[in-house]
Amino acid sequence: MTRRTRRTRPSPTALPGRTVPVAGSIAAQSPHHCRTSPFSSRLSYDSESMRCRKGRTPRTLILPLAPTGPMIRRMPPLLTIHFLPTTVESARLAGTVAVMIDVLRASTTVTHALAAGCDSIRPCRDVVEARQLAARPPACPDNLGPLLAGERGGTRIDGFDLGNSPSHFTTTAVGGRTIIFTTTNGTSALEHCRPADMVLVAAFCNIRAVADTLVQRNQPVHLVCAGTDGEITAEDCLCAGAIGLELQDHGGFDTHSHDATRIAISRYQQLAHDSDQLLAELRDSHGGRNLQKLGFDDDIAFACRHDTIDLVPAFDTHSSTIRTLS
Amino acid sequence: MTRRTRRTRPSPTALPGRTVPVAGSIAAQSPHHCRTSPFSSRLSYDSESMRCRKGRTPRTLILPLAPTGPMIRRMPPLLTIHFLPTTVESARLAGTVAVMIDVLRASTTVTHALAAGCDSIRPCRDVVEARQLAARPPACPDNLGPLLAGERGGTRIDGFDLGNSPSHFTTTAVGGRTIIFTTTNGTSALEHCRPADMVLVAAFCNIRAVADTLVQRNQPVHLVCAGTDGEITAEDCLCAGAIGLELQDHGGFDTHSHDATRIAISRYQQLAHDSDQLLAELRDSHGGRNLQKLGFDDDIAFACRHDTIDLVPAFDTHSSTIRTLS
Repeated sequence: MTRRTRRTRPSPTALPGRTVPVAGSIAAQSPHHCRTSPFSSRLSYDSESMRCRKGRTPRTLILPLAPTGPMIRRMPPLLTIHFLPTTVESARLAGTVAVMIDVLRASTTVTHALAAGCDSIRPCRDVVEARQLAARPPACPDNLGPLLAGERGGTRIDGFDLGNSPSHFTTTAVGGRTIIFTTTNGTSALEHCRPADMVLVAAFCNIRAVADTLVQRNQPVHLVCAGTDGEITAEDCLCAGAIGLELQDHGGFDTHSHDATRIAISRYQQLAHDSDQLLAELRDSHGGRNLQKLGFDDDIAFACRHDTIDLVPAFDTHSSTIRTLS
Repeated sequence: MTRRTRRTRPSPTALPGRTVPVAGSIAAQSPHHCRTSPFSSRLSYDSESMRCRKGRTPRTLILPLAPTGPMIRRMPPLLTIHFLPTTVESARLAGTVAVMIDVLRASTTVTHALAAGCDSIRPCRDVVEARQLAARPPACPDNLGPLLAGERGGTRIDGFDLGNSPSHFTTTAVGGRTIIFTTTNGTSALEHCRPADMVLVAAFCNIRAVADTLVQRNQPVHLVCAGTDGEITAEDCLCAGAIGLELQDHGGFDTHSHDATRIAISRYQQLAHDSDQLLAELRDSHGGRNLQKLGFDDDIAFACRHDTIDLVPAFDTHSSTIRTLS
């Protein structure tokens, strides 16, 4: 099955990243950043679209042949989108790939931190645990000790090195370092995904990289939206819909049989053709309104930029750390 | 604030009810049914659209004046759509109007049963409770004793008088009777709504009647989708979106501040202009696929018909019965 032409994703000229240039973004800081990052060999930088791109070739789905008799067509793996972690029991994720999505801002921050060259990220559910870990740090590659990062109520925790603004996680700030990280919604959602075979982290900045990884794995996929304070948030649903649309366009997944999955994909399709409308929806979202009240409006535009990073954060449940998927 | 022109609801000629006439529907059985029903004085029958209609006049929102100083504009009540009962804590419904939606099929059946002249409906969570109630029946107005109705796994429970096919709840079958009713999802969702000031029941057949009631109440509203076996179902979300669109068109509610509410309304707007597409989505939904497997395909088309009934079922939490809202 060859890859179908994408019909509804924003054209390069209509990308949020183009219409809302943000100071401090990786692309804005250094157009050559991607070439020098740990994943540089897989990338070329497209200055026209402000995206990092991999060379793409038409994909072929190789179906296993039955030993005898006619070929048995394997059912495509199911894509399931959960608008909140609580809408799927944790145990149901066993045997699948789970993708945690917290666009504003944990997923976006984690992806940017790894793209900026941080060694690993240790997510913690609460502030006390984060401080205890910092006092008894794991072996750090640079002997500088870990950085403490995270937020409560959206703002940086007292005494922490960094908050949760993705644009602050630059190479200068986090390159080579280990980060102990705690946020209100994202870290809990990540813990919820533990039973899965593989736990990935997605945001708008790495939609395509995540979709490519899911295609390679060819397993059932659960996209788990973190939400905000237990409420469904539009930005996470839209990002899940964007990944769903990538997989739908690819054709190797069942993106039709789950009702919430269809709802999320169609909602993204409604907004994706107009970058201003998509950004407005992010600003209007539960998480977006909270950030605006706190003065983090720039973070919303930053998080809305599509496919600026070709890297997938993966949560290793044994070591409880997030690293770049190799 | 005058009522705005509706822009995206299906035109009378594009209504699902027109393109999918179903044997056994109230309108098909007797075009004069509404005139002889308990709510006949409020209605006129529109043979062109196959809807029962109330006379409509432009609405005016009267804002309270502050005793002194400048006029204080009252915030419009918030509309909140919950894709599953589990996405809202029951206690949060206190002080609001809750509307339970289980399009396939409990809501549709309850509304049709009351429109067919049944006296009241006693919802039960489980089959044992339903049988016990039938053995010790409440005083029934016709001395005939209660009818037992409901389903498990979609099919009629052994020994019950009726299943859960709304078209079977005719005047002949249920007129004047009390019904003890238990279904897989709807009755649990109704119990979840108990803490609310008022608990209503909605389906596609009474969208406009429910919206009119909500406008009159002018309180915060929670639309609670029942889902199917704990999963989000498209048909309930679409019906919630349809009611949301009515309230959005009316203008007296805040239909914009809650993310899931915007998602539901926009999804309904996407499909509402094409009755075939809307019906196809209901057939494709989790609940719809279950019903097709069981041979209840006609029930889906029946439940998809819009505004055939101008009546609102209300759950009296003291007597635990559903009756027509007076």
